[in-house]
Amino acid sequence: MTMAGHRRVTVRDIAAETGMSIATVSRALNDHHAVTPATRALVHEAAERLRARIGVSGKPKGGTVFVRCPYVLTDYFGLIVSSIAETLTLHGRQLVLTAGEAAQRTPLLADLDGREPVTGVIVILPPEPGDDLVELQRRRMPFVVVDPRTTLPKDIVSVSAAHFAGARRLTAHLVELGHRRIGVIGGPTEWLASDARLAGHNAALADVGVLMEPQLLHSVEPTTERGHRAAAALLDLPDRPTALVCFNDKAAVGAMGAAAERGMRVPADLSITGFDDLDLAQATGLTTVRQPLQEMGRMAVSLLVRLLEQHQLDALHIELATELVVRASTAPPPLG
Amino acid sequence: MTMAGHRRVTVRDIAAETGMSIATVSRALNDHHAVTPATRALVHEAAERLRARIGVSGKPKGGTVFVRCPYVLTDYFGLIVSSIAETLTLHGRQLVLTAGEAAQRTPLLADLDGREPVTGVIVILPPEPGDDLVELQRRRMPFVVVDPRTTLPKDIVSVSAAHFAGARRLTAHLVELGHRRIGVIGGPTEWLASDARLAGHNAALADVGVLMEPQLLHSVEPTTERGHRAAAALLDLPDRPTALVCFNDKAAVGAMGAAAERGMRVPADLSITGFDDLDLAQATGLTTVRQPLQEMGRMAVSLLVRLLEQHQLDALHIELATELVVRASTAPPPLG
Repeated sequence: MTMAGHRRVTVRDIAAETGMSIATVSRALNDHHAVTPATRALVHEAAERLRARIGVSGKPKGGTVFVRCPYVLTDYFGLIVSSIAETLTLHGRQLVLTAGEAAQRTPLLADLDGREPVTGVIVILPPEPGDDLVELQRRRMPFVVVDPRTTLPKDIVSVSAAHFAGARRLTAHLVELGHRRIGVIGGPTEWLASDARLAGHNAALADVGVLMEPQLLHSVEPTTERGHRAAAALLDLPDRPTALVCFNDKAAVGAMGAAAERGMRVPADLSITGFDDLDLAQATGLTTVRQPLQEMGRMAVSLLVRLLEQHQLDALHIELATELVVRASTAPPPLG
Repeated sequence: MTMAGHRRVTVRDIAAETGMSIATVSRALNDHHAVTPATRALVHEAAERLRARIGVSGKPKGGTVFVRCPYVLTDYFGLIVSSIAETLTLHGRQLVLTAGEAAQRTPLLADLDGREPVTGVIVILPPEPGDDLVELQRRRMPFVVVDPRTTLPKDIVSVSAAHFAGARRLTAHLVELGHRRIGVIGGPTEWLASDARLAGHNAALADVGVLMEPQLLHSVEPTTERGHRAAAALLDLPDRPTALVCFNDKAAVGAMGAAAERGMRVPADLSITGFDDLDLAQATGLTTVRQPLQEMGRMAVSLLVRLLEQHQLDALHIELATELVVRASTAPPPLG
């Protein structure tokens, strides 16, 4: 692991250790006025801890952490797992991975039982029912959930993006452009993220006294192909929407295809938005919401490490801020 | 691990075990006439082995495999690692992962020394010099290299895509459309893949008696931004090319941006091709070459397992076939 190599403590390392942004850390190290003494102290303590650790070389002291991500590691999951891997290395801990759709055939507990002893667990968007997580709690296994899919049983530590705030800001952007009749291609209704983002969307509409008509919502598995189909249905409505808000970038790219088939120009005739800010959002000039995937990975590890070191956690559920990224797929609605 | 769950042997499992395609396996299981008796026998043996293994539950019998992928797990690397993870699980082996750019700060051997004992290693696109791999050999550590970046020391087992054949087929497609003046945005000259793909390109041109002019080649780090800059330089040549062959899909998307800035329509004014067939190639309608990333992961594991079981390997270097994917970014050159 990294500690075995000879290296210096970097700003990035400290950001990973503290879960703070790289900008905040460097400001703190430079005693920037905008940084509170408390933050500055935290940063300097972290730097000390890291220097101490890096002195030590040899086998991982921290033991093994089991990371379960039962999905293909394409951009979204891949960025989270990469960040977790880098941060665990930094903490002198070894990462044992389960990944790929096939892993969903094995329940979490069976997957865990099959292994050498692990000291902690990070589960990403767990498809399994809450009972499995409760059982993990009962076994006193320290674990953190990244991006919980459904409501978690109480007292479980989790990290996710601020879905409500991100979606609200995105729809507010469309409302500011003048859109009022907005179609929504949402995620599966049982997902927390779908519910929170729809609530954010409705909140932004309510701010201008608009109530979304039920037929403007399609809840689907957010893939390019499903997004394409849902967009087709929405664009074939007698009174078609002037904008489409899609659950993620992949669904939005599908929606762009449906618009092109109907000879509609984006954004002149139709505005389209995504969510995640993957490479393909940049490649297709898609207005979207950036999810803090690397920060989510770093934060998950910091929380787990605090659990492993029996620290008190101030917050059990951490929501990390998202950022609106405006590109070329949104514009005022067509006249008339 | 999966063996702990109760499940049946699937066609996919057998494909993973044998390194054959799913189509071949199902044909063999259905005693399809197109399948040789030898292949059929291999498939049925594999199925037997798997049923036997699945009977066994509990801890991984096969020990731990260390997978080193010192890059961010976006689509390209993420798909390979996911496939390796699924296949190792199937073989009852535990995966210990190093991933993320930060891992490049730790040499392979230091990374390995820091760990609990591992029984085998898979290194993906290793940035380290061949000496490290020779040292691994000297230690008699079974290992497989996926997608070697540079020429490997002798007797090292590796898996990669058929870069030469894939690039040759791609340029042949452009030549068939009538292109003769083709710009190349190639990868770094020291990469094996860059060299093999350039050779494939030149072979396809030689078939129609064309020799590429040196100023039509730009060798760059294949990112969207570098692809954009290289394309700009090529399109600003007094006698601009009618097509651009890019090292990967990301560079090609950058090239599309450079064309758009110059008011050039793709493919009417300019044809552009990529390589890899990532999501963004589909999203942008890019003609590209599909790399068999999942098959590469499966094959890497089958080879490593054979090494671990002291089997004789027929081939030390396996090249997996690529596939030309024609989309909307290629057309005949403009007239005149």
